[in-house]
Amino acid sequence: MNQGRPLPPKTPSAEYARSVASELPALYKLGIVGASQIARMTHQAAVKLGITPRLLAEDLHDSAALAAPAAVFSHPDALAAFAESCEVITFEHERLDLGLLQRLEDDGTVIRPGTRTVRAAFDKMHQRRVLLNRGFPVPAFAEVRGPDDLLDFSGVYGWPLVLKSVRSGEPGDRGVWIVENAQEALRVMSEQSSRQLMVEEYLAIVKELVLVLARRPGGSARCYPLVELSIDDGAIKEIRAPAAVGHHVATESRELSLRLADELEAVGILAVELFLTTNGLIINELAARPHNAGHWTIEGAPTSQFENHVRAVLDLPLGPTWATAPAIVTINVMGGLEFIDPADHLPEALTVEGAQIHLYGKQPLPGRKLGHVTAIGDDMAQAQSLARRAEAALMGRRAW
Amino acid sequence: MNQGRPLPPKTPSAEYARSVASELPALYKLGIVGASQIARMTHQAAVKLGITPRLLAEDLHDSAALAAPAAVFSHPDALAAFAESCEVITFEHERLDLGLLQRLEDDGTVIRPGTRTVRAAFDKMHQRRVLLNRGFPVPAFAEVRGPDDLLDFSGVYGWPLVLKSVRSGEPGDRGVWIVENAQEALRVMSEQSSRQLMVEEYLAIVKELVLVLARRPGGSARCYPLVELSIDDGAIKEIRAPAAVGHHVATESRELSLRLADELEAVGILAVELFLTTNGLIINELAARPHNAGHWTIEGAPTSQFENHVRAVLDLPLGPTWATAPAIVTINVMGGLEFIDPADHLPEALTVEGAQIHLYGKQPLPGRKLGHVTAIGDDMAQAQSLARRAEAALMGRRAW
Repeated sequence: MNQGRPLPPKTPSAEYARSVASELPALYKLGIVGASQIARMTHQAAVKLGITPRLLAEDLHDSAALAAPAAVFSHPDALAAFAESCEVITFEHERLDLGLLQRLEDDGTVIRPGTRTVRAAFDKMHQRRVLLNRGFPVPAFAEVRGPDDLLDFSGVYGWPLVLKSVRSGEPGDRGVWIVENAQEALRVMSEQSSRQLMVEEYLAIVKELVLVLARRPGGSARCYPLVELSIDDGAIKEIRAPAAVGHHVATESRELSLRLADELEAVGILAVELFLTTNGLIINELAARPHNAGHWTIEGAPTSQFENHVRAVLDLPLGPTWATAPAIVTINVMGGLEFIDPADHLPEALTVEGAQIHLYGKQPLPGRKLGHVTAIGDDMAQAQSLARRAEAALMGRRAW
Repeated sequence: MNQGRPLPPKTPSAEYARSVASELPALYKLGIVGASQIARMTHQAAVKLGITPRLLAEDLHDSAALAAPAAVFSHPDALAAFAESCEVITFEHERLDLGLLQRLEDDGTVIRPGTRTVRAAFDKMHQRRVLLNRGFPVPAFAEVRGPDDLLDFSGVYGWPLVLKSVRSGEPGDRGVWIVENAQEALRVMSEQSSRQLMVEEYLAIVKELVLVLARRPGGSARCYPLVELSIDDGAIKEIRAPAAVGHHVATESRELSLRLADELEAVGILAVELFLTTNGLIINELAARPHNAGHWTIEGAPTSQFENHVRAVLDLPLGPTWATAPAIVTINVMGGLEFIDPADHLPEALTVEGAQIHLYGKQPLPGRKLGHVTAIGDDMAQAQSLARRAEAALMGRRAW
């Protein structure tokens, strides 16, 4: 006798996925759209609390779908069908049909963060306009409908300039190009002719910082300590918590981010990427979901960003967000051109005492985030050295 | 188009379960027999390392099966069929067919811990005989084949006595009865006539302690700090780490347990339940799997017992086992006669700052472990107070 759920029909349908979903006993029917590593870690945080989220995967080999029961829908109304099986919907990425999202929300689906926040994270022109109108510090920017817009802008701001895709891209595609002159800029424009582009002034950046906060529907919010990033070839390489900044910058980044979260009515985790420039803090990007710069909170804070995201979107009390150690470093494990699989080097990496190894179960492809390591230390140099040794071991290298 | 795994046939078969299993990309094909909360937390620890264990569930509503893809086999050769899909098999309980286990091991299946260790945890008469022969401190004991054995034993050791089921029972059934006189003893024997029983001397217990250790196949091992239990009605109520004992007792418990682990060739987590008596340490029970007394390691140690169990059974380097705080308290969340569901009280419990809430997704039944809370403190009173407040909140009570 099969003691479990009823057998699926030959062709999976929205009805079947719903019937499976409704069978799972869960206090809160939480659905997560997306099934990569962010969903994988969010799922784990929810399970700890006794909550079994449903996952909307694109593929059953997605990182989170490997580790948790997941639903895959393939018809055009995927999100709508998924939403029907859940009481609250949240996201691990912003690559969404905003029109559909808005319609679902208008029809009463509880979407957290809401369409307003997701739009600001997804559409960077929209975001810049909203923030500028509300007096937030953003770089000078302009829409690029053609070469004239670009040349007008360069006439004011000179070179280099930053070209950006207006819409969030696929994972691994940041959609940001620093261009030194008109020729380079026109080349990027022609290569990216299918995408809507915008241009921004190039800022002299002292530090790249991220403020991760969690906010409930009613507005109560908690900030994690500000962190500092090392960027390598456009991708986050190393995250250091707390950031080595003075009290003034730390406080200002917190106040700015909380004000921004209120402005966007953010719910869940909001990650505010900031540039510290010689002219002060400037908002770079927003993510309305758990963020790479918050992975350190799994071991380094009493409540991880993933657990606080779950708590916030379900309107449950938020947990404490302080750092439990003086220095915490996270390093991303990135797929390289050698196609080295860090899982093959797990035995070596696990010998690095006190480094926490997280692997996402993904096939190693160049530029792909395959995992991360976190190390906790009494000072930054110690944590950094541990994390670097572990990351190097996973990639079959000696530590930098 | 369905992008995932092939659709299952109408009737799930061992072949189908194997085909699903073999499709999952995993460096280490680890199988966990059992799918309750121990498997649920072990699965999470494995997923962190990029490993996707298969679960052998009895029911798809089991705690771990709710949160992870699981296989359910119902035919008599369930374990054998499951073993074929895995490279390493481990367990979350000892209620196993030892003959089948031995045959699988003889046929080359990698079973960790091995049959020798599982037998010692499962069959308490066997365990007592082995330990006594090797000079380990155990209570006086005797097999009870009938009333004469019992009366002979009481002639030497007087009353009260401890009657025990020789075999591990189902969860929630500890199979231990303290009997005050012959009449009570005979009543228990008649009620438990279907079970094989043994009798032990009743010891004056100063403290109940547990030493949790992890051991690799080659013999390298690491001990977690000794913990102290509060027992309520035969069930573990509260776990305090570290135990309030002197250096001598802490050292002796460690040495005793490591020697025992070597003797049994234990692999994975071995939990040694000890009585501290006025005559020193006595071995009470063994568990050859992650143990309730080690749940605190999820937040209170650099490597949880679950991660070290996974590492040990896969023969990977063990992680550090120290306590990261001066005082850590875990309290079990037990189902009561009022059928209160702690999930209904999650909002209240989450307001207890710094308490870690773990719920297992189980239906609330009397005597069932539904979850646990862990609190970390600067001293034991603080940790205890936090944990008690969180547990009380989950059960809709005021703190004790």
